Amino acid sequence: MAEVIGALGEIVGAAQVLTGAEAAGHARDWTGAYVCDPLCVVRPATTGEVAAVLRLANAAGVPVVPLAGNTGLTGGGGADAAILLSVERMRAIRAIRPEAHVAVVEAGVVLADLQAAAEAHDLAFPLSFGAQGSARVGGALATNAGGSNVLRYGNARDLCLGLEAVLPTGEVVDLMSELHKDNSGYDLRDLLIGAEGTLGVITAAVLTLVPRPRAYATATVAVASVEDGLALLNRLQRETGGAVEACELMPGRYLDALAAHDPAVRPPFDARHAVNLLIEVGATAPRDATPGPDGATPVQAQLEEILGDLFEAGAVHDAVVAQSDAQRAEMWARRERAAEVVLAPGPVAVNDLAVPLDRVGAFLAQADAAVAARDAGAVPLAVAHLGDGNVHYAVRLSRDDAALKEAIVEAVEEIVREMRGSFSAEHGIGRAKLPSMRRRKDPGALAAMRAIKAALDPAGVMNPGKVLPD
Amino acid sequence: MAEVIGALGEIVGAAQVLTGAEAAGHARDWTGAYVCDPLCVVRPATTGEVAAVLRLANAAGVPVVPLAGNTGLTGGGGADAAILLSVERMRAIRAIRPEAHVAVVEAGVVLADLQAAAEAHDLAFPLSFGAQGSARVGGALATNAGGSNVLRYGNARDLCLGLEAVLPTGEVVDLMSELHKDNSGYDLRDLLIGAEGTLGVITAAVLTLVPRPRAYATATVAVASVEDGLALLNRLQRETGGAVEACELMPGRYLDALAAHDPAVRPPFDARHAVNLLIEVGATAPRDATPGPDGATPVQAQLEEILGDLFEAGAVHDAVVAQSDAQRAEMWARRERAAEVVLAPGPVAVNDLAVPLDRVGAFLAQADAAVAARDAGAVPLAVAHLGDGNVHYAVRLSRDDAALKEAIVEAVEEIVREMRGSFSAEHGIGRAKLPSMRRRKDPGALAAMRAIKAALDPAGVMNPGKVLPD
Repeated sequence: MAEVIGALGEIVGAAQVLTGAEAAGHARDWTGAYVCDPLCVVRPATTGEVAAVLRLANAAGVPVVPLAGNTGLTGGGGADAAILLSVERMRAIRAIRPEAHVAVVEAGVVLADLQAAAEAHDLAFPLSFGAQGSARVGGALATNAGGSNVLRYGNARDLCLGLEAVLPTGEVVDLMSELHKDNSGYDLRDLLIGAEGTLGVITAAVLTLVPRPRAYATATVAVASVEDGLALLNRLQRETGGAVEACELMPGRYLDALAAHDPAVRPPFDARHAVNLLIEVGATAPRDATPGPDGATPVQAQLEEILGDLFEAGAVHDAVVAQSDAQRAEMWARRERAAEVVLAPGPVAVNDLAVPLDRVGAFLAQADAAVAARDAGAVPLAVAHLGDGNVHYAVRLSRDDAALKEAIVEAVEEIVREMRGSFSAEHGIGRAKLPSMRRRKDPGALAAMRAIKAALDPAGVMNPGKVLPD
Repeated sequence: MAEVIGALGEIVGAAQVLTGAEAAGHARDWTGAYVCDPLCVVRPATTGEVAAVLRLANAAGVPVVPLAGNTGLTGGGGADAAILLSVERMRAIRAIRPEAHVAVVEAGVVLADLQAAAEAHDLAFPLSFGAQGSARVGGALATNAGGSNVLRYGNARDLCLGLEAVLPTGEVVDLMSELHKDNSGYDLRDLLIGAEGTLGVITAAVLTLVPRPRAYATATVAVASVEDGLALLNRLQRETGGAVEACELMPGRYLDALAAHDPAVRPPFDARHAVNLLIEVGATAPRDATPGPDGATPVQAQLEEILGDLFEAGAVHDAVVAQSDAQRAEMWARRERAAEVVLAPGPVAVNDLAVPLDRVGAFLAQADAAVAARDAGAVPLAVAHLGDGNVHYAVRLSRDDAALKEAIVEAVEEIVREMRGSFSAEHGIGRAKLPSMRRRKDPGALAAMRAIKAALDPAGVMNPGKVLPD
């Protein structure tokens, strides 16, 4: 293996090949749950160097694991005795073309850096989630990352027009087009997006930018049921022409747990409600930034009017529209502290699920009942992106019992399967969800995936042991 | 082969196997350019029957060509001695779920039928193009069809949440989810979409519905340059929050040809302008359907105000906003007669191209110059979907000369390549574009496509001779 390390040094320069303690930072994922013992870390500077590393790995039969920001949640990075190929040095924003609304970037660009660069052109890169300060473009695309604005802007796949990648055999695929229509053969771009680095290394991309919202109207709303929440969302979409940026569901039980976790958090309403929504509308017109005589911007006034109508009609129990940036931030903080509440010390079973939009309420009812039947003392703590059907369904268990945890995950996933949902909405498969993939993915689809993997990676060097169960 | 026909009859019923004169209608594409001599036509009624046909075809080594509405433009259907598998009998709209904004349909559903069914729920299925009265869902997905509303709603791929397909070997892949987030393995859905039936037969789909616009504001606008047109579009997108449904470019030369073709067509303005746009904004809020005291709906008033501002600023030379449905129809007729004008008798070279949004003006200038250098008497007649960079660039030649036509196509595609555009924007490859695919598609991408084809269709039975050049 010393020969391989030497040859890698020839390709990228010896200083860019890290071993032993120097490699330890890359060998551990940020959750700390996945630690590996790699052959080395290599940090190529160009697509040509990435291709050379992969040709070498094929010849030597050494696995290669691509790394970007290393912020994934399912153990998709890392493998013992592997070359960890980090794209961190490939971090140029090659171009921003404001009239065409595109950015041409390398895979190592940090999402927050791209967001800032877009903003300098009065545009936005709308892929946004907690890890955006360290997550990089290559990883966001490899995992088809989501977040809370998917409702309006789609996930990473929907924001990617073009791609450059190195296939497992070292062949470069240049799909760096900026086109909204291109029907010239199979959709390799979308095959590489979401493949979690098992079909190649994404090295560059053309990404979509959007007009930057000039004003937001943000509200917390209590409704009678999840179904009423969906009807409210549908009405808002019609009224605003599709300008709803987020529609987050916070059940009363979650807000109770948040208050118990941190008594300094103010509840949204004097009364407790079972179904609470955080709704945000974004307005991009310059006039939307100008408040009227009563201090409300046009989009705030519009949201207040609609919520007022629905309150009169009995569809809304209570509602507060944020009157300041501070109030908006307070509303978002209630939602964004979910991870902290869920991951507080103690046994917990976590699920990242999606169900059809009109089944979220039924899912929660069935899942809560299934949990109660298995652990009467368990507390289900769901929060959901209601606008895209993605439920983060965590269960705080009454006792630390691996069999119980497994039984609850199994029961919840079975409900999801019956609703034609997905056991992995936005976090991907990695290693963590391999058992679910084996048990619940359509067998025909699994067979086709395996055939594609074997065709593009005949030597099996590319991120082995991820996505596809044995 | 009589045995194969007999066995097919066992699967679908003898009455659903057509041969000889009975098969002639299916053996000819609607342009009349592609006629084949098939073994037979089979018309299965279920996914199980489709799978059985494919297993039989694999065993017998007989090619299978899927057919839906047979309205493609590039010869993607048909092959001598093949089984033409028509999905025309699989035409159930299984469900429309209005709150979730989805339709669950079989592959043989005619697009116009789905549009009507959606409208009954006050929703729209926004995939819209000339052939929608006979094109079917399976074909629209297999070719990733586009049309004039791609700007707002995306192409067929963007409107498809879930898919069921039979792979070439007869294996059924069930991806019929209704999910907006599903990261569970490789994106087989998008691989099958746009594969033009070479990787399997699409049998059913879950499609996205959208709120139905209640009012439109439609205008014809003369601007100084294509670049000014793009700036106008970007401003309108900001002002309307992304509600622009179409932005079609009609150069003066096209309008001249239209007037010559049919003197009854009124020109849009008294003066002739070099760059004319057809712009349409759609408004979904109920209040948008109510005209104000001056007779204009709110969205019409907004468009008039913006265009007035731009006229004052000199960015718009002239503009007319439609005041009635009849005026709107007249504006659209100018654009929709393009095919008729282009395909009038006489030699013509037709191209379906895409370039980056901010290069459309430069493309037209370079292409017109390249054409003039090769045929001084040629008349380029471009129309374009400016909002998505798709240019239908037709050239009426001064003489019928195959070498000249080839030279002009070659020169135009070379300009497109230099701009990182696509030689096939929305019509696909089929047989017609195989030479362009061979010459201009990235070699790494072509190799990967061939590997995938071989992996999923080892016997090579599925729609042979399409998409991938030898």
